[in-house]
Amino acid sequence: MATKQDHPDSNLFPHATGPAKAIVDAHQAEQPLKLFSGWFCPFVQRAWTVLEEKKIPYQYIEVNPYHKPDSLLKLNPRGLVPTLQYDNKPLYESTVICEFLEDVYPDHSPTLLPKDPYDRARTRIWTDFCTSRIIPAFHRFLQFQPTDDEEGLQGVRKEFLDKLREFAQEMDEEGPFFLGSEPSLIDFVVAPWVMRLWVFDHFKHGLGIPEHSNDAAWSRFRKWQKALEQRPSIKNTTSETEHYLPIYQRYADNTAQSELAKATRQGKGVP
Amino acid sequence: MATKQDHPDSNLFPHATGPAKAIVDAHQAEQPLKLFSGWFCPFVQRAWTVLEEKKIPYQYIEVNPYHKPDSLLKLNPRGLVPTLQYDNKPLYESTVICEFLEDVYPDHSPTLLPKDPYDRARTRIWTDFCTSRIIPAFHRFLQFQPTDDEEGLQGVRKEFLDKLREFAQEMDEEGPFFLGSEPSLIDFVVAPWVMRLWVFDHFKHGLGIPEHSNDAAWSRFRKWQKALEQRPSIKNTTSETEHYLPIYQRYADNTAQSELAKATRQGKGVP
Ligand SMILES: N[C@@H](CCC(=O)N[C@@H](CS)C(=O)NCC(=O)O)C(=O)O
Ligand SMILES: N[C@@H](CCC(=O)N[C@@H](CS)C(=O)NCC(=O)O)C(=O)O
Repeated sequence: MATKQDHPDSNLFPHATGPAKAIVDAHQAEQPLKLFSGWFCPFVQRAWTVLEEKKIPYQYIEVNPYHKPDSLLKLNPRGLVPTLQYDNKPLYESTVICEFLEDVYPDHSPTLLPKDPYDRARTRIWTDFCTSRIIPAFHRFLQFQPTDDEEGLQGVRKEFLDKLREFAQEMDEEGPFFLGSEPSLIDFVVAPWVMRLWVFDHFKHGLGIPEHSNDAAWSRFRKWQKALEQRPSIKNTTSETEHYLPIYQRYADNTAQSELAKATRQGKGVP
Repeated sequence: MATKQDHPDSNLFPHATGPAKAIVDAHQAEQPLKLFSGWFCPFVQRAWTVLEEKKIPYQYIEVNPYHKPDSLLKLNPRGLVPTLQYDNKPLYESTVICEFLEDVYPDHSPTLLPKDPYDRARTRIWTDFCTSRIIPAFHRFLQFQPTDDEEGLQGVRKEFLDKLREFAQEMDEEGPFFLGSEPSLIDFVVAPWVMRLWVFDHFKHGLGIPEHSNDAAWSRFRKWQKALEQRPSIKNTTSETEHYLPIYQRYADNTAQSELAKATRQGKGVP
């Protein structure tokens, strides 16, 4: 078994770059709310964008979750980022962290969950859809080895596109965000993977969304994607593509050994 | 592909029996809140116990989700129970339904989520642990074919017990419920599987929790299990064992074709 020192994924670029670097630099001062982060991690980006959106004071602490420091393991025995330290108490699981930030800062816009109970529940159904359906399908497609089986590749591509299209069909007609003119929990939970869709161009000969189709769902999807890409909190917590590349190369080669990569190989969902 | 008419799991006992029958009979009158239910379904039981606990007026509608009637598919394209109809609008996903009932009836005790944001978040982490860790491990153990591989059987048993023990270690010391003297979302979300632990005695030569051990986690677990078993809302939404038997026989033989059974075979989580 790999020891802490030689986890095969631990050899990653050590810090945020590009727009994300400025934000990291601005959040080094000690704060009671601490975000234990990996700059590259899409689950981190969920919580990080919410902190940025709501202008919540926080301290950014870079850790390498494949080379887990004791400071992380003491807070979160699962050893995953994001981990939050709040008043000396630990919290983890990115979606839980986002809902927690909403509970503590309900008056800081944007409001992550609508006030109406039915709309809240619907928001939760489609937020869960991102984690339980879209992300596993993203990874099954990315980690699929096309040399083995060309037909299989079309299958995992189609599975992923079907999920995206089903999701797009549930969006508010106008948008641009899922629920309407303002972003909500759903958008922040899935945005990090939308920002990483370029991996399919790079590693899988394209994602395969019909580009000039008049299909209403795909038009709506493109409008939504653009709104996410332009949102400062999302854009500015993203690093330079070249530093994500070696990480996603390992996924695309299916040699990555992260919990997520292993779960995907076993057919499981998000760890 | 199987058509609606001949789903191999559709041949189940048609209605609730034992204590659950009395509750079903008492909830036949038309109500704006309708629970589309399968008497045997543990995910239904989550929502059902919360409706009972909070004394919320509801109409119980028995459907066979393996022989999906249009009334169900119109509300929930996934065709799963529980599905709720509320003011003519559909809701599904059992945990979402439970949180919805809390949002609509916050003053009906018990309170499913603590008021303090940190405690709420912790409740969500461990509620999610039930769905994402405990239940898949329950099914991997139950569906494992021991004739193939005796060592493998010990592996899936151990995986399940490890999850239960990890869970027990997070419980409030006194209890008897997870968070303390009153039950919360966590308890109702996992209780249906606790009520079905007898399947391991029946099909797998015992669950294997050390019975007379002084291990604090297992003592705490037994205290908790007893409190759930005695809770009227849980006890009284449970039918007679003999009618669950043929259903669980199909899981134990690994011939069940429910979405959950198939997901388990593929190594995936809860559908
Ligand atoms: N369910 C977790 C998943 C977090 C996660 O997988 N984070 C990755 C980095 S992107 C990690 O810490 N991996 C360490 C490992 O796999 O050992 C969440 O939503 O926060
Ligand atoms: N994630 C769903 C799962 C519900 C579920 O799997 N229900 C089963 C009955 S226990 C069902 O409707 N199965 C129909 C099928 O598998 O086609 C929830 O939490 O409500």
